Amino acid sequence: MGKKIKLADISTDPEEKITKEEAAKEMLGLTEKLAEIQNKLYAQKKYDVLIILQGMDASGKDSAVKHVFSGVNPAGCRVKSFKAPTEEERAHHFLWRVSKECPEKGMIQIFNRSQYEDILVPKINNLIDDQLVKARCAEINSFESGLVRDNTILMKFYLHISHEKQLEKLQIRKTDEYKRWKYQKEDIAAISKHDDFAKIYEYIFEHCAEAAPWNIIPADKKWYKNYLILSEIVQELEKYEIHYPKVDL
Amino acid sequence: MGKKIKLADISTDPEEKITKEEAAKEMLGLTEKLAEIQNKLYAQKKYDVLIILQGMDASGKDSAVKHVFSGVNPAGCRVKSFKAPTEEERAHHFLWRVSKECPEKGMIQIFNRSQYEDILVPKINNLIDDQLVKARCAEINSFESGLVRDNTILMKFYLHISHEKQLEKLQIRKTDEYKRWKYQKEDIAAISKHDDFAKIYEYIFEHCAEAAPWNIIPADKKWYKNYLILSEIVQELEKYEIHYPKVDL
Repeated sequence: MGKKIKLADISTDPEEKITKEEAAKEMLGLTEKLAEIQNKLYAQKKYDVLIILQGMDASGKDSAVKHVFSGVNPAGCRVKSFKAPTEEERAHHFLWRVSKECPEKGMIQIFNRSQYEDILVPKINNLIDDQLVKARCAEINSFESGLVRDNTILMKFYLHISHEKQLEKLQIRKTDEYKRWKYQKEDIAAISKHDDFAKIYEYIFEHCAEAAPWNIIPADKKWYKNYLILSEIVQELEKYEIHYPKVDL
Repeated sequence: MGKKIKLADISTDPEEKITKEEAAKEMLGLTEKLAEIQNKLYAQKKYDVLIILQGMDASGKDSAVKHVFSGVNPAGCRVKSFKAPTEEERAHHFLWRVSKECPEKGMIQIFNRSQYEDILVPKINNLIDDQLVKARCAEINSFESGLVRDNTILMKFYLHISHEKQLEKLQIRKTDEYKRWKYQKEDIAAISKHDDFAKIYEYIFEHCAEAAPWNIIPADKKWYKNYLILSEIVQELEKYEIHYPKVDL
């Protein structure tokens, strides 16, 4: 059982531990570190890394992918964005499409949205009951634990954005010519359900933390969010013995 | 029919048009341009990009992936390294595994080795005759032309390295602790067949250029090779109308 988290009690925009300029500088160093760890990970092929990014619409998942992982070698890093399930995906068990995208040893895999969408979306639309939510959580725990047992380094991030900030970003998507292509009418509906989503997320944090804890990342400030994610990833990876393999010739 | 190319007549280490320091600086700007084009490509979803890297062992394909594409958003860029075919792959037609990895609209896909391996390797080992080589070339032409007709921007690079430089790099792989993991005994055998490979490549350049020409990149100097590839890619992409889509709300 994970700990109970009340999202309303956690600031989406806390006082920063670092200035924006310092963070930009530190990110350069952290990116280099991550690239170096990735080289070794790829050579060693003992571990793989799975990074799950969850968060409500406009919480900055795409920007996290771009700013945290530009700089790593794309040969060792894959991104999968899970969208509304296709017809083929819907015809399978909900973990089918996820399982196919899990990383092989040596790789970093990023999930932009993930298996948790199959709790969040049907639950918000009243398509599944509490019983099934509970069952899916148990199944996800078992699935993730299996990955971890098999040397997957699993990290889960929740990008925690306020309702006000969501609305503001939605407005920008509508008016900024470079962002308008991302705008979808469904976003409005989804964003209006901020508090309902928060409740489901809180349930997930409590019931889906067996294999790896959730990192709640304040996400109102884009630069701070990206800095926190990158720091957390490098710090976590440094705990493992990731090094070039010794090869006898 | 492509033009006849005699590899022996092309320098693997020509006089550079730029100093190493200038190239490093220019690459920063080019990387930014590539990242910007990628953003638009991803938003527009009109084109996709397929970049094929071919070259003999130790010609620097991995390093090209790393140094040319670190800096692009991994959400829009995938790398597929084709190895010796698996049992499943061998049980299919040679284009099966390649076709599965072709990009979707908006994406940049890099092939580290490609469909051409299924001419090179069986031919060098006398497992296929000239008739079948010719047939496979024709089939590849048709396959690639189909992609191009379907708005794939296809670029093909041959990393042109000298036999001497190959041997030197193989030696480094054996002794450098950071590179030893890449060393494989089969490399020695493959590298000893430099001239035989060159002949097959020359046949390919002539007979597989219907859909896109081959760029022969001098590859003895790593920095110059990577600089030339990146310049060529940006220059080519700038020829296309890649821009943010106009969206009416």
